[in-house]
Amino acid sequence: MSQQKPFSPSTHPFVFSLEATDGDARAGYFSTPHGLIPTPLFAPVGTQATVKSLTPAHLVDLDARLILANTYHLYLRPGSSLVSEMGGLHTFMAWDRPILTDSGGFQVFSLAKTRRITEEGVQFKSHIDGSTHQITPERSIEIQEDLGADIIMAFDECAEPHDREYNEHALLRTHAWAERCQRHKKRPDQALFGIVQGGVFPDLRQSSAEFLTAMDLPGYAIGGLSVGESKTEMYDTITTVNKILPGNKPRYLMGVGTPEDLIHGIMRGVDIFDCVLPTRLARHQAAMTLSGRKNLMNAVYSHDQDPIDPQCGCYTCRHFSQAYLRHLIIAKEMLAATLLSIHNIHTLLELTRACRLAIVEGRFAHYAETILANLSQPSVEMKTR
Amino acid sequence: MSQQKPFSPSTHPFVFSLEATDGDARAGYFSTPHGLIPTPLFAPVGTQATVKSLTPAHLVDLDARLILANTYHLYLRPGSSLVSEMGGLHTFMAWDRPILTDSGGFQVFSLAKTRRITEEGVQFKSHIDGSTHQITPERSIEIQEDLGADIIMAFDECAEPHDREYNEHALLRTHAWAERCQRHKKRPDQALFGIVQGGVFPDLRQSSAEFLTAMDLPGYAIGGLSVGESKTEMYDTITTVNKILPGNKPRYLMGVGTPEDLIHGIMRGVDIFDCVLPTRLARHQAAMTLSGRKNLMNAVYSHDQDPIDPQCGCYTCRHFSQAYLRHLIIAKEMLAATLLSIHNIHTLLELTRACRLAIVEGRFAHYAETILANLSQPSVEMKTR
Repeated sequence: MSQQKPFSPSTHPFVFSLEATDGDARAGYFSTPHGLIPTPLFAPVGTQATVKSLTPAHLVDLDARLILANTYHLYLRPGSSLVSEMGGLHTFMAWDRPILTDSGGFQVFSLAKTRRITEEGVQFKSHIDGSTHQITPERSIEIQEDLGADIIMAFDECAEPHDREYNEHALLRTHAWAERCQRHKKRPDQALFGIVQGGVFPDLRQSSAEFLTAMDLPGYAIGGLSVGESKTEMYDTITTVNKILPGNKPRYLMGVGTPEDLIHGIMRGVDIFDCVLPTRLARHQAAMTLSGRKNLMNAVYSHDQDPIDPQCGCYTCRHFSQAYLRHLIIAKEMLAATLLSIHNIHTLLELTRACRLAIVEGRFAHYAETILANLSQPSVEMKTR
Repeated sequence: MSQQKPFSPSTHPFVFSLEATDGDARAGYFSTPHGLIPTPLFAPVGTQATVKSLTPAHLVDLDARLILANTYHLYLRPGSSLVSEMGGLHTFMAWDRPILTDSGGFQVFSLAKTRRITEEGVQFKSHIDGSTHQITPERSIEIQEDLGADIIMAFDECAEPHDREYNEHALLRTHAWAERCQRHKKRPDQALFGIVQGGVFPDLRQSSAEFLTAMDLPGYAIGGLSVGESKTEMYDTITTVNKILPGNKPRYLMGVGTPEDLIHGIMRGVDIFDCVLPTRLARHQAAMTLSGRKNLMNAVYSHDQDPIDPQCGCYTCRHFSQAYLRHLIIAKEMLAATLLSIHNIHTLLELTRACRLAIVEGRFAHYAETILANLSQPSVEMKTR
């Protein structure tokens, strides 16, 4: 009934070119088989091969340049071999721009049930049907090769950030697993990124950054943050790691997506971010703005003819009042999540685009200061009351 | 904080021009303050001021030319005075093409609780919070003037189609109410359509069509169908009524939306249709095609690389396999409803567009025959098994 597309990857250089730097902040381009990724950049998350409530056309309108999909979820459902049979993730979800898949590591540690960790890998039970599975570094790479993203991640262990002893053991495994991923990898059209771990411990983070740098991978991620440590611990860890990671490779801060954290990351030399926050908040009636969050369920918006943000150029703000958005929420209409997702993703994409321009124009420090000062003001809702 | 727009309706002629006829089928244009409506036409339903799961931009892409909104729902939530304060429905929901609102009559009889019907109007309890309300013909017009649609409907009583005695009494009220609506109406930029009732009884339908025709309204609807009568009774009623309704006014068959019924309606001189079917089926995993319905939850589609309909030009069929749609359904992703709604609405809009062309080109009878023959074949799913 249907034809299978032949698997024919071609070698790709995966070059990261710096266009400008401003302090530690960097403006660059990372080349992938599906096009250039301008950095700094925020990547929306499409966990199950869909950025929740949005069509790919919405994401192109928003000019999203990279999206993330979750290996753990897609491995369990619909299965990576099915995705491969359908021509890979790009064809399956109709997204011809770059895709990044995580390794499944984080989800195995945060979502799956009854884990058993050995040097070999992790055995766990599916959060969907309780079935037993094992993911090893080799298996993670095979799954990610089936999915076919442009950037794939090394299989890592996410330890509780303040547990020194656990972090020491986990780090050894994470490093050994990274080497096994690098050895097992076959597709020349995918870039394997290593993940720096080590909790909140600067010496562990340093040794992790050094170990992975020596592997000469095309890019590096900072993992295990935004999982319970303080903001100071998060920002200090980024500073520590980025002093060691090579300047000519992209740096990806995993799972981070508040405007404040984006600014702090970029300030410290981070290039790529991803987070479910904009779409998750959208499904919980919250709008992200650079003056704080708004809960549109609030009765204060019931007669409000203004858009979420009069300065915002997104589809939602160009067409709809807060009164209409509140009506959709109260009436439990699906369109509410779609319109808020459009706005929230636009807010983060615009922020990284504005940061990029400020870096190129050598005025990033001032721009960052202005944004952070604005974000620390009392919330918009407080002001309107 | 926000400015209220002044209410300044201008007189509009509401002309219905016939471009061509073919047998009893008609191709025409109905002019409204928000543009021409080409007929025959299917109108998607946006019950709560949103066509479920779609943005207005999706509907423009689909080239929807008229949408329907529900007076009963919007009166209860968010309230018609709020919609008026926000500049009316067109501004509120960001839809600048024609809108039609029903009178609230059908919903009062099908959704509301503990109704009390008098000559004055209907008292009922809200299906949302049990609060007590009264809608009279005058109140229905006031609510619809607040909402500000291009086409508004007379307040009518929907009787059980086979109950002769009830239909006789209800019809007298429906006619008296239509006259009160016509008298009470103030806005010159809205066309009031009368609704022919009378159940399955030809003599009652005839007298209703005659009574309303004498009122010289700008358009007429056929109500009380697709509510439990047989297909033969439905089609015969349409034939009976359309013999009497004036040829120079549009005819709107309410609540009808299967491809088969659209063809049978157009064949008998109907110009406008509306129905929740395409969006409701979409939320229940069903795709409408001109060879029958498909339930995409069916395991037969799990590895299917083909789109729903290889001949369909909709966004969904141009980009997504049935395997992907099934994955979205199984993973309970909202995008499933959006993509299926796009496809289903496209199917009905394309069908009415194709009918229009066939009428203009004088080959409608043959076209209708082909479509009906195809629809009566065993279902697609049966064939693929």
